[in-house]
Amino acid sequence: MRIVVLAGGIGGARFLRGLKRAAPDADITVVGNTGDDIHLFGLKVCPDLDTVMYTLGGGINEEQGWGRADETFHLKEELGAYGVGPEWFGLGDRDFATHIVRTQMIGAGYPLSAVTQALCDRWQPGVRLIPMTDDRVETHVAVELDGERKAIHFQEYWVRLRASVPAQAVVPVGADQAKPAPGVLEAIAEADVILFPPSNPVVSIGTILAVPGIREAIADAGVPVIGLSPIVGDAPVRGMADKVLAAVGVESTATAVAEHYGSGLLDGWLVDTVDAAAVERVEAAGIRCRAVPLMMTDADATARMAREALDLAEEVRGA
Amino acid sequence: MRIVVLAGGIGGARFLRGLKRAAPDADITVVGNTGDDIHLFGLKVCPDLDTVMYTLGGGINEEQGWGRADETFHLKEELGAYGVGPEWFGLGDRDFATHIVRTQMIGAGYPLSAVTQALCDRWQPGVRLIPMTDDRVETHVAVELDGERKAIHFQEYWVRLRASVPAQAVVPVGADQAKPAPGVLEAIAEADVILFPPSNPVVSIGTILAVPGIREAIADAGVPVIGLSPIVGDAPVRGMADKVLAAVGVESTATAVAEHYGSGLLDGWLVDTVDAAAVERVEAAGIRCRAVPLMMTDADATARMAREALDLAEEVRGA
Repeated sequence: MRIVVLAGGIGGARFLRGLKRAAPDADITVVGNTGDDIHLFGLKVCPDLDTVMYTLGGGINEEQGWGRADETFHLKEELGAYGVGPEWFGLGDRDFATHIVRTQMIGAGYPLSAVTQALCDRWQPGVRLIPMTDDRVETHVAVELDGERKAIHFQEYWVRLRASVPAQAVVPVGADQAKPAPGVLEAIAEADVILFPPSNPVVSIGTILAVPGIREAIADAGVPVIGLSPIVGDAPVRGMADKVLAAVGVESTATAVAEHYGSGLLDGWLVDTVDAAAVERVEAAGIRCRAVPLMMTDADATARMAREALDLAEEVRGA
Repeated sequence: MRIVVLAGGIGGARFLRGLKRAAPDADITVVGNTGDDIHLFGLKVCPDLDTVMYTLGGGINEEQGWGRADETFHLKEELGAYGVGPEWFGLGDRDFATHIVRTQMIGAGYPLSAVTQALCDRWQPGVRLIPMTDDRVETHVAVELDGERKAIHFQEYWVRLRASVPAQAVVPVGADQAKPAPGVLEAIAEADVILFPPSNPVVSIGTILAVPGIREAIADAGVPVIGLSPIVGDAPVRGMADKVLAAVGVESTATAVAEHYGSGLLDGWLVDTVDAAAVERVEAAGIRCRAVPLMMTDADATARMAREALDLAEEVRGA
């Protein structure tokens, strides 16, 4: 079975770990969000790709969900002593190595997709990880700060401001000119199932879908497209998805997110058991829906969620 | 008193610490060797400048004489895990910050001299540290390896090979096209004394003198130029100076090094007490010479050496 998964960071990475457990023999291609990539200290940092790679490769800091296990922060401390910031982005000493290798390879002319493959040669994530594009896309968030409207990098909004001010707009700058990375459209065309994990529908999956050709390829693939709600009981399971959903005029409910994707894209949708009342309304929108436990509390629970998604895909296929 | 010191790495840095102690009110300008600079992992590394800066700024690893105190090597460990080398150059996590800041500033268009000044804003070395040039100079060493003659970077010769094969030639590539960094010639012209610490006469001081204009400015300064022998009892005090002295046809003796600099450049020369027999021959070459203890065993001993050098300068001046 060939599965394509569009993934953001922590939620996507943890779901993928469950999926590998639920379908150990599946051939999994992950299309990773690069809209939250950021240049820091002259280095190219790809937080979502790295979170997937570290999580599946066994190098993740389990408690925080991002960054490396057994990490130190001496380099960052020294940058601070030089007065060089930003100090709000937590790059550890081990993590820096990934960004240094990546930046060197990009400087030598390799596209990000080739670089990601080279990094994965070490981590052996057990999936094929492809960035959504080799082109530069950078998600910016329009906010009002000190009475002034300005566009800031997504990471500044998310990490520095912790989404504490309303997002007036979310713009994946460069996405309209970007091309899907080599292998992305092919993997979608050859997939048996396409999954949207409980990742952020705006700044993770939404950004991937903003790369011209990807949304169309998914809609035209003719295979079940199944999503898992990142909203449980009207609140994001983790992160601050509600803040950016508001910017695109979508309510923070499992139903509203399903309708945001729409029946033109989505064939099936899993909501949490606490949102069982949403099933009827989602199905009225032409999307098959089931209520199952959606909390990724441990590896077993996550694998069961992935299994439910694959079961729903079978159901859609058989319908 | 205005003192100009030409400095390499460890020997130069330790001597400078003694000099600051011997002449606490002096205005000291250090012209630093950059011939051993190397690009590693996309970063510009300046080992000699950093050794001076860390030593005088209190950040040096005292035992090894280079690199940072309280250092970890997690980044390097990870680069190794990615298969990215060289593994023979010991960059620590704290040290990396210096190279990242420097590389970013150079990428933004600042010359190395301005970058060095910015880094020193943090370290407050108590001297004015200027690289010999803002231009790229790279010392290469011609060696025979596996039956083939090749030119390798000085660091590869020194650190990887530990000078284990004969150096057939030492070439400061780019030196002939380099210009002294802003402030170098001015400092020399305004100096009251010019000192050559017991640094490597070929790859440290020799490289600085190879930048067109510097040797001439020193010779024409009309002030005492005093050197301290890095050779004690026919062997280098530390490092492997004998290996590169052979490449330029100079014996590893205190006398031969003095003659190598020559009376056109050098007015006074300090040899160690074990080399007292050399005094007569050095003076016969037209260079005033004294035999004094030259082992930098501790701060006091080093300060006494510096004091002897300044006393010899006074003697030269009074002559």
